[in-house]
Amino acid sequence: MFEDGGWVTATTVLRPGQKLRVIKFVAYGWSGGRSLPAVRDQVWAALTAARQAGWDVMLAEQRAFLDDFWDRADVEVDGDPEVQQAARFGLFHVLQAGARAEDRAIPAKGLTGPGYGGHAFWDTEMFVLPMLNFTAPDGTASALRWRHATLPLALDRAAQLGLQGAVFPWRTIAGQECSGYWPAGTAAFHVNADVAVAAVRYVDATGDEEFARGPGTDLLVHTARLWRSLGHYDDQGRFHVDGVTGPDEYSALADDNVYTNLMARRNLLAAADAAKRYPERARELGVSDEESAGWRDAAEAMTIPFDETLGVHPQAEGFTRHQVWDFAGTSAGQYPLMLHFPYFDLYRKQVVKQADLVLAMHLFSGAFTAEQKARNFEYYERLTVRDSSLSACTQAVIAAETGHLDLAFDYLGEAALMDLHDLEHNTRDGVHIASLAGTWAALVSGFGGFRDLDGTFSFTPRLPQGLIRLAFTLLIRGRRLRVEVTHAEARYALADGDPLEIMHHGQPVSLSAGTPQARPIPAAPSRPRPSQPPGREPVRRRPLGNTT
Amino acid sequence: MFEDGGWVTATTVLRPGQKLRVIKFVAYGWSGGRSLPAVRDQVWAALTAARQAGWDVMLAEQRAFLDDFWDRADVEVDGDPEVQQAARFGLFHVLQAGARAEDRAIPAKGLTGPGYGGHAFWDTEMFVLPMLNFTAPDGTASALRWRHATLPLALDRAAQLGLQGAVFPWRTIAGQECSGYWPAGTAAFHVNADVAVAAVRYVDATGDEEFARGPGTDLLVHTARLWRSLGHYDDQGRFHVDGVTGPDEYSALADDNVYTNLMARRNLLAAADAAKRYPERARELGVSDEESAGWRDAAEAMTIPFDETLGVHPQAEGFTRHQVWDFAGTSAGQYPLMLHFPYFDLYRKQVVKQADLVLAMHLFSGAFTAEQKARNFEYYERLTVRDSSLSACTQAVIAAETGHLDLAFDYLGEAALMDLHDLEHNTRDGVHIASLAGTWAALVSGFGGFRDLDGTFSFTPRLPQGLIRLAFTLLIRGRRLRVEVTHAEARYALADGDPLEIMHHGQPVSLSAGTPQARPIPAAPSRPRPSQPPGREPVRRRPLGNTT
Repeated sequence: MFEDGGWVTATTVLRPGQKLRVIKFVAYGWSGGRSLPAVRDQVWAALTAARQAGWDVMLAEQRAFLDDFWDRADVEVDGDPEVQQAARFGLFHVLQAGARAEDRAIPAKGLTGPGYGGHAFWDTEMFVLPMLNFTAPDGTASALRWRHATLPLALDRAAQLGLQGAVFPWRTIAGQECSGYWPAGTAAFHVNADVAVAAVRYVDATGDEEFARGPGTDLLVHTARLWRSLGHYDDQGRFHVDGVTGPDEYSALADDNVYTNLMARRNLLAAADAAKRYPERARELGVSDEESAGWRDAAEAMTIPFDETLGVHPQAEGFTRHQVWDFAGTSAGQYPLMLHFPYFDLYRKQVVKQADLVLAMHLFSGAFTAEQKARNFEYYERLTVRDSSLSACTQAVIAAETGHLDLAFDYLGEAALMDLHDLEHNTRDGVHIASLAGTWAALVSGFGGFRDLDGTFSFTPRLPQGLIRLAFTLLIRGRRLRVEVTHAEARYALADGDPLEIMHHGQPVSLSAGTPQARPIPAAPSRPRPSQPPGREPVRRRPLGNTT
Repeated sequence: MFEDGGWVTATTVLRPGQKLRVIKFVAYGWSGGRSLPAVRDQVWAALTAARQAGWDVMLAEQRAFLDDFWDRADVEVDGDPEVQQAARFGLFHVLQAGARAEDRAIPAKGLTGPGYGGHAFWDTEMFVLPMLNFTAPDGTASALRWRHATLPLALDRAAQLGLQGAVFPWRTIAGQECSGYWPAGTAAFHVNADVAVAAVRYVDATGDEEFARGPGTDLLVHTARLWRSLGHYDDQGRFHVDGVTGPDEYSALADDNVYTNLMARRNLLAAADAAKRYPERARELGVSDEESAGWRDAAEAMTIPFDETLGVHPQAEGFTRHQVWDFAGTSAGQYPLMLHFPYFDLYRKQVVKQADLVLAMHLFSGAFTAEQKARNFEYYERLTVRDSSLSACTQAVIAAETGHLDLAFDYLGEAALMDLHDLEHNTRDGVHIASLAGTWAALVSGFGGFRDLDGTFSFTPRLPQGLIRLAFTLLIRGRRLRVEVTHAEARYALADGDPLEIMHHGQPVSLSAGTPQARPIPAAPSRPRPSQPPGREPVRRRPLGNTT
């Protein structure tokens, strides 16, 4: 009844009221390496297996897979049914994009559309994998194994650029650099630390020693070598990374981008730690004590510029001295700016496409004082136009942390509804996988205040006025931790496994399986709502709808 | 006997020893605007006139034209017959490129080859026109009238970039921007000041009031408007020009390039002066007192960065803090660097393709102290690889000024022999017109110490050991000034016209026609010879050959 590329004709006679049920099995196979007959065999085998199992068994398997996922990964958002739906829509799509178990890249549009030509970017490592780490960590492992498989190309690319270690591509399908515009491609070297730090976070979240000893150490060592050769010391002994492009695509080729330097620092320290922890692997990679000490030295000496006059961190050296974009003279129809103004003009002025310094504050909470976070956030809010879908979610996280909970709620709405409301008019090209994962971040790291990159798993939960309750489950080193947040308190329940220590608003909480603990939520600091460029304010979100 | 596109056959019988003399008249016509029949008519008319005049008359006319040129423009270099020949070779080619009297661009290769696709660049204004100003000023007028004719396109281009005033193209044939790489094209905004300052220098040299009142004022006003809109004030009231590319093509997109800012300052002040001097024209251009006052304010507030720690001017903000290029690790075969290293790496390090800060010191002598000039020159010598033919001549000028006369002589040799010795292996593409004009600069502004941009015509002549005598004639406001320099003294002789005041080594000298004046030459300051990147030292030049 099934054919390969041919036509199948089925004929029957139906009486009025009778139904015809057609069950069609479709298998899809692709390979960049195997022969066509081999791929064909794989597809036939899949179809044969499907026929043997039958529709009901396959349905049950799929249901069990998804039940398991929802059980360990669901996020409940009481008070906003629309965001509730969007959060689950996002979880599903990120899972679908990430759980293919084929050790291939997770592209920007997942499997949903032709946007960006199927290319994968840094947002996989920085937005998608952090969510998968705590919900479907096999997906992270697969994506990182894919990056690891491209190491030979990355080593070649570094050599081509006259650098040590590995240089991963800005955009790629199979590991080669596919960006034709180097100031916003190759120069965005942070992608290398993004890969390395993603490996660190995966290992922290899962405790996957085998990965850490093997691919993880490889990735860390080769990227640390890159940073050591890309940066240099000045005559004051400070380490600089010059002429690179940070996450914000409305700036390029600047010195000492704070995000890049903090990521590079983490990368260097993690590589030194890995070399110490896995001496055999390090030896195989030719790492000497001198070399790893050099990584620590560079990390210690890393320059993080600060504007003493304004009391804020410049996104990169000199940024806060530049002319501020003429927002008042820019009309609504001139956004996104990159379609209406030359990059020459965007690059030289203070205008931010997407969270850059603010993303650094999300990841490196301990590198900024509370006062600096508040001042920085307010400063960059005035400059950030969100011409990228990869901004609202991060702004939500830091808005929540700095006490602007209702603003965070607005940004959550924008991130969550990016595709369901087609806010950028391009969902036909595929959904924004990273922004959908960012919805999870806005909820879990925003209103849940979850942080994982300072050596602990910490929470500073606080809800906006529009929400009644937020609940989510995180898979931490194989254990399910359920977190339930109301305006009054947070409740932490470890479902299984060994005890776990977490932080709640700066205080340690020791959790044992089966013994939930509740903690009160301190009041948020009161600060005036920051302003955004005129016309670029997020839509106000006020739900407090029925709970589901 | 002549035909249009056909074959002509001439038959004769020669006896042994007899000669056949064939005189062939060739005319060439081209137009971007007129019809083919009109161009054909022009060519036929030229041929008809040639036949009527005959070979001998045409030869005599040509000889008279050149005799006149050599009489007012020759440079005599006693002690170095090779440089003597090269200097005359250069004078001839620059004249040929510049004296076409067609109000068209003077392209980088003149009329001698297909290099650079026939495009004209900023080097016409900054290297070729300064020589023509004092030797064949009609050529400058023609080239500047061509620029002026492209103003409508430059105004359009500025509007396209969201700027006021005019934006001239980085490379062009007919006025449109023909560079496809904006970081080293459009971003090199100094071309606009180069055009404006060329107009200022032409008027200073010739006193051409008609040009000054008309095209000159137009060029100055529209470029001043550009600078006012391109730059901005910081909160300390300093005026900055951010994110632009200076003359050195191994740097790009930097803030406050010293050359650019000094040129912009001159441009702004000259525009304000022109508006005051030609109020009617200024009114037609819509210049108000407020606007021209704004130009003066911006010029006054222009930021000229200085590195207090090193005691040198950074080429642009932050330049001297960057990593120094690994010259020791760069082999001879890896030059020119741009063919062997990515621009990413060149841009972020201290390595200089061609004189940039050193060119600023040539043009704006008064903006630097003698001590700064010496320190700056020594600093940039260590970084300058001369991967451009537009460097040695400028280095010769400042080497001579700072007392490194023998080094200046070496650079003179390189500039002079660029094409005769095919030093860059590309003379087959055409001669380097600007470098040939630069030979004149190396002699006249180097060993003659001639400067024309500080409001006076000044000389600080000094010869290197390899030369016996240098003599040159400058056409200054219609008067011929002959300058003769030996190791002991300089002799200034005004051939005709009204008296003229010049400066000799900082002292005024009043010249009257027919009364030459001699002045002794003070000893040069003694300084150790600066070093260049290993392998990039200029070839030592020692002539003191027979005088011609």
